[in-house]
Amino acid sequence: MKVEVITTGTELLLGEILNTNFTWLAQQLNLRGFDVLYQTTVGDNPKRMKEILDIAAKRADIIITSGGLGPTRGDITKEMIAEHCGVDMYMNLEVWNHIHDLLSKRNICIAENNEKQALVPSGAIVLHNEAGTAPGLILEHGGKTFIMLPGPPFELKNVCEKELFPYFEQRFPHLGIIKSHTLKLRGIGESNLADILDEIIFHQSNPTIALYARRGEILIRLTAKASTEEGADALIANMQEKVEKVVGTYVYGYDDETLPEVLGKELLSRQQTIAFAESCTGGLVSSMMTDVPGSSEYLKGSVISYTDVIKNQVIHVSKTTLSKKGAVSEETAIEMARGAREVIGSDIAISITGLAGPGGGTRKKPVGLVYIAVADANGEACRKFNFGGTRTQIKHRAAMAAMGFALDRLKESSHTNAEETIHDHDADR
Amino acid sequence: MKVEVITTGTELLLGEILNTNFTWLAQQLNLRGFDVLYQTTVGDNPKRMKEILDIAAKRADIIITSGGLGPTRGDITKEMIAEHCGVDMYMNLEVWNHIHDLLSKRNICIAENNEKQALVPSGAIVLHNEAGTAPGLILEHGGKTFIMLPGPPFELKNVCEKELFPYFEQRFPHLGIIKSHTLKLRGIGESNLADILDEIIFHQSNPTIALYARRGEILIRLTAKASTEEGADALIANMQEKVEKVVGTYVYGYDDETLPEVLGKELLSRQQTIAFAESCTGGLVSSMMTDVPGSSEYLKGSVISYTDVIKNQVIHVSKTTLSKKGAVSEETAIEMARGAREVIGSDIAISITGLAGPGGGTRKKPVGLVYIAVADANGEACRKFNFGGTRTQIKHRAAMAAMGFALDRLKESSHTNAEETIHDHDADR
Repeated sequence: MKVEVITTGTELLLGEILNTNFTWLAQQLNLRGFDVLYQTTVGDNPKRMKEILDIAAKRADIIITSGGLGPTRGDITKEMIAEHCGVDMYMNLEVWNHIHDLLSKRNICIAENNEKQALVPSGAIVLHNEAGTAPGLILEHGGKTFIMLPGPPFELKNVCEKELFPYFEQRFPHLGIIKSHTLKLRGIGESNLADILDEIIFHQSNPTIALYARRGEILIRLTAKASTEEGADALIANMQEKVEKVVGTYVYGYDDETLPEVLGKELLSRQQTIAFAESCTGGLVSSMMTDVPGSSEYLKGSVISYTDVIKNQVIHVSKTTLSKKGAVSEETAIEMARGAREVIGSDIAISITGLAGPGGGTRKKPVGLVYIAVADANGEACRKFNFGGTRTQIKHRAAMAAMGFALDRLKESSHTNAEETIHDHDADR
Repeated sequence: MKVEVITTGTELLLGEILNTNFTWLAQQLNLRGFDVLYQTTVGDNPKRMKEILDIAAKRADIIITSGGLGPTRGDITKEMIAEHCGVDMYMNLEVWNHIHDLLSKRNICIAENNEKQALVPSGAIVLHNEAGTAPGLILEHGGKTFIMLPGPPFELKNVCEKELFPYFEQRFPHLGIIKSHTLKLRGIGESNLADILDEIIFHQSNPTIALYARRGEILIRLTAKASTEEGADALIANMQEKVEKVVGTYVYGYDDETLPEVLGKELLSRQQTIAFAESCTGGLVSSMMTDVPGSSEYLKGSVISYTDVIKNQVIHVSKTTLSKKGAVSEETAIEMARGAREVIGSDIAISITGLAGPGGGTRKKPVGLVYIAVADANGEACRKFNFGGTRTQIKHRAAMAAMGFALDRLKESSHTNAEETIHDHDADR
């Protein structure tokens, strides 16, 4: 099935936003066996949109649009496709009721232009958009399938995953299966990993093995192609075993699992609570932890001790330590963790203190220097890091390292009470 | 001058990489007064590439390609354009020498297929690529200008800045300037704003006015076209005045300014410090505030009181309030703000307590219900919100509203000491 994706919007042609919708759609469609052969971007202009639709209908079987379904005059996608297919539009009551409910829930008055969003081309299948007011639409005409998706990335993904992809499975059951499985690693650098896996990757074509470095973690993606789901699963399982035989110790999770989720599960299963004393991460670790539903079960609370006064008064870091060793030091990190554990009353506490930059670095304490300490029933320990990158990258890398330290500590405590001596952790940068 | 950009490469159609080349080119071309009307992506396939070139040559004056100039068989852009224009290729000695020098410097042996990169269509202008082996090329044919650029983003930018843009200035001196200016609003919904601005937008063509909704904020983008930069600036200033006359109270910043930056500047200029007591936002507000370099000047610290025990023990919310009114209530929010201000010793403190979901909602206190309170020298005040969306969206919307409340309070304190009574804030959702 030949697919053309038409992304609409003047903001794309002005270079104001990256076309992330297309990249995501392309990944998903290729995975499902569609041939994405063309992608076109056009502005909210009726004449040019008409031309583009005429061309696409000639060269593709499935034409997918994103954007242009909003309430404003500039939103013309639905109107142009209805015109192209020569069908009328009608007010769809289900869509209208959904818009009504959604806006009432948010206490927003319905505006006159919201009515436009409830208009549906005759004969179109409505793809419910639970996250927004513009539904997705499927219109079959002249042997071609026109699929209209909302522009906001979150809504587009939601409509695809909940409505469009299940529809594809029924409508195009003959397409082959491509499956992906991702291993998530921390504590090892991309180049090291590529070296270790070089032999395996070189001899491998199905599944393919791809490495991606993201802030503070590395992904290994295995992608298998087969005629059945079971076939693809077997290919992946076989390769995963080979890969984990050499780098399994660095794997902390799979696919959509995040480090905060994995740490949360570990805390839950051990019935342990946690607290953070954050300095240079400024709340990021706690915010990432609380992105996980149900995190109040194990995260008791945190203190963002952004100034020395708070470090001293709220979590009792001694004034002597702060003045003699400085806020960015092993000693301060350890006292922060100990203090946070006492004040908040958690089983385990993690502290983060460092220099996120861009200013404030010195020769002895450069930007990127971060101390992360842990305090629990077994005592305290500290790790020292030198992260590279911008201010927000350093914050993120420190946050990942802090959660990784907590995870290691929980797993260690099963076998040993040994204290960790401070040493540089290089691979996490 | 109508421009079509053709980005080539199977990796784009597979969704393996984001099309950053196009976004950058679009920005640069618009700035220089070109009308970027179409963008097309096509794979390394001769038949489809030929079709795309035929279509582009019909509808655009300038056709710019990126990618497909490499040494492999899959690199076909130059060959296809030479064929389209009916011209031969010849071995260009300058290009050949450059390839030779570059590879020797990198200690790479010249491969046979590097010769292909030194082939240049007859009559083409060579754009020197100091960073790579594939030169850019300009070929004029039949009143159309074909511009071929290398695919690697660094090489593409380099060739454009050093060779192509200076050429444009000589070749198209008559082109005007397009400038954009963005107003950033909070506290009003997109549909309401569209209704209010409908008349202005409808009668407006230069500058154009576009509205974009992002999480917790709305952007109004004014884009003006003129023969000089001064002319464009004047058009924008004039329209900005009209727009701000009706919705100016919702504008908090311009262009790349973020709400944490604007709030930070306001705190700095008033020499005020701030602290947050975060419950449902879980550290997000503090993390956003500390993304701004130098935020330690005004953010003293925060407490993430994720459990009732911490609300009571660390920031002194009374047990009676917690048990009688509940953690998500106006009373708790106010005591949190008051307590955080005392414990952390800041001039102003903001508290956020609510239900981020997905679980835990009741009929009386549904998911999305959030109370935000402020405490400062003038006393305390509270606002109640009902946010829609997922857990992370609710967190983000609450964070934006919290920073907005702080900003309002700082600005209010200039004129009045009046307390704010609690009322639903609808527009921020």
